[in-house]
Amino acid sequence: MHQPRFSAIYRVRCDPSVIEAKAQAIAIEQSVEMPLSAIDDESILRDIAGTVDSIDELGKNLFEIHIGLSVATVGGDAGQLLNMAFGNTSLHEDVVLHDLVLPDALEESFGGPRCGLPGLRERLGLPVRAFTCSALKPQGLSSDRLADLAERFALGGIDFIKDDHGIADQACARFAERVSAVAAAVRRAVGATGHATRYVPNLSGDLCQMQRQLRIVQDEGLEAVLVSPMLAGVATLRALVRDWPNIIFFAHPTLGGAARISPDLLFGRLFRLFGADAVIFPHFGGRFGYSPDTCRRLARNALAPNPRLRASVPVAAGGMTAERVPEILDFYGTDVMLLLGGSLLQARERLTDVTRAFTGTVARYP
Amino acid sequence: MHQPRFSAIYRVRCDPSVIEAKAQAIAIEQSVEMPLSAIDDESILRDIAGTVDSIDELGKNLFEIHIGLSVATVGGDAGQLLNMAFGNTSLHEDVVLHDLVLPDALEESFGGPRCGLPGLRERLGLPVRAFTCSALKPQGLSSDRLADLAERFALGGIDFIKDDHGIADQACARFAERVSAVAAAVRRAVGATGHATRYVPNLSGDLCQMQRQLRIVQDEGLEAVLVSPMLAGVATLRALVRDWPNIIFFAHPTLGGAARISPDLLFGRLFRLFGADAVIFPHFGGRFGYSPDTCRRLARNALAPNPRLRASVPVAAGGMTAERVPEILDFYGTDVMLLLGGSLLQARERLTDVTRAFTGTVARYP
Repeated sequence: MHQPRFSAIYRVRCDPSVIEAKAQAIAIEQSVEMPLSAIDDESILRDIAGTVDSIDELGKNLFEIHIGLSVATVGGDAGQLLNMAFGNTSLHEDVVLHDLVLPDALEESFGGPRCGLPGLRERLGLPVRAFTCSALKPQGLSSDRLADLAERFALGGIDFIKDDHGIADQACARFAERVSAVAAAVRRAVGATGHATRYVPNLSGDLCQMQRQLRIVQDEGLEAVLVSPMLAGVATLRALVRDWPNIIFFAHPTLGGAARISPDLLFGRLFRLFGADAVIFPHFGGRFGYSPDTCRRLARNALAPNPRLRASVPVAAGGMTAERVPEILDFYGTDVMLLLGGSLLQARERLTDVTRAFTGTVARYP
Repeated sequence: MHQPRFSAIYRVRCDPSVIEAKAQAIAIEQSVEMPLSAIDDESILRDIAGTVDSIDELGKNLFEIHIGLSVATVGGDAGQLLNMAFGNTSLHEDVVLHDLVLPDALEESFGGPRCGLPGLRERLGLPVRAFTCSALKPQGLSSDRLADLAERFALGGIDFIKDDHGIADQACARFAERVSAVAAAVRRAVGATGHATRYVPNLSGDLCQMQRQLRIVQDEGLEAVLVSPMLAGVATLRALVRDWPNIIFFAHPTLGGAARISPDLLFGRLFRLFGADAVIFPHFGGRFGYSPDTCRRLARNALAPNPRLRASVPVAAGGMTAERVPEILDFYGTDVMLLLGGSLLQARERLTDVTRAFTGTVARYP
């Protein structure tokens, strides 16, 4: 009889004396957003108002609460799922959105990646080994300079070359000009190596601008793009995935503000749910402070077998070095993509050589 | 000779021994995102790489740092401004984006609200007094029930009636059906009161869906809509403001806490910069933990005289009650909109009476 629910799991820091009131306040804030006493409709109290399903003490002044929320309120919209799960509650400093438990039908309605890990393995003809990726930077280079870098990366046999996420549609390297120049450079290198390196341009602006950028991507015969869902809006990612089923979508974590939504949920599960084929995140021990546990959970979430959602490829990034490749592969296994940017660019004139060493290490592993 | 810069101001929590290294790391992360030693282009080191302009100790293990970033990297895109100001650095738990100092030309290129406070005062014929607003909720009600509520609010002489931000395009009250029903109900009430109450439907989904929703809004003769920029993406807000110059845009703060951007900057300055005519935020002492200082700074940012940007109307909300109206007006003055939702709805059958008391208090103030 009851309408379907999903479960939002929060970690709350507060005094034990107020946790019950806080849990009830969150249940209301994330659903009807008004005093229950002011609601006279029984079906809303029963089906729509959030419910406090459990409160567990995890440690001193730290609680985990499970709140039941109505699936009907999501209305099939990705932004609305984030809105109902964490919208106004994100304004509270003492609450973190820790996890979501979604019913099968809701997962199925979003549908996840169109290509994902299995599609990438098939399209690249790489059934087992890890994928390799690097980044064009710094921002500010001209299209020709970026194209030159891309050619040298591609000559090193790398699988994917993405734009830095800070490279948008700027005067120094306009999207159309840059994508054309880099695509041509990569085609030349592919002709020389025989290895099908793929260029991954970064989309920016609003949805209409991104649609125009994707038409350029398609005209250049490219297969993959980079999107930043927390900048663009998760509904924008969903719209692109729906409209471009043959494009491989990389999701970038920028503005992910991961202190408040747990990164294994946001990048590992939600970006996958909304259709990202590959999800970039900072591996531990680089420039960002994620723990090994967070990285492991994130990768597991991206890969977890799910009859309704293809796996997303976890892309470990953020200050990785070539020396760490075996260690990283030991940690994740080979269902992973390794993204090395600055550490390869630091080799300057030896860029192609160090790239070749990197791709060779990955190919020979273990 | 130097290319124009904007300044990003961060608050960083760390040991004094590492603040210089952290500041330099943020300057690089938010610009070239690679070791400076790997960059051989002098113009990029000079014009594009971020600069640490100052480091000040605010208290024990708390620092304020000013980082200079290149205006050219923004490329006129709202999402890209957030990306350059806080993208990857949002992933660090110990850094908050505290403020931005933007050159005049950059402000001018975004342009701010098309209508804003002066436009609202003119269109509503209200040169002095504060504006009043309420909210349709709970989510889950049918279009007819929401229309009935709206009619009773409008009979109380309120200026704006917005959808709750959780009311999207759900099966229980589809956007087209709801907007049509509520608009008709408000028209009936306006015919009775002579006061031009305006209904503010909530847009949701991706940019294309929002454009379709705006065509319905226009067809119904409505003048205002609600958008959630942190869900939809700030570039989506910009695109809508550009395409619909006669529509009044209310911005909702939902999901605005997740990225740890100071609320007076995000809601007061950035939402204004990107074109929001009215910015909703939680007033202190309601359901959210903002301090009086934060609220005062936020309202001042929205209103600060600026020859390039019209003022946005600060909309104080989040658990306000009618009893607090004089106190809130004493605090903000009358360049404000007061949003009372649940506390009016709690009156149930007396909804129109308490709404009339609320609008009367505001009209008679001081």
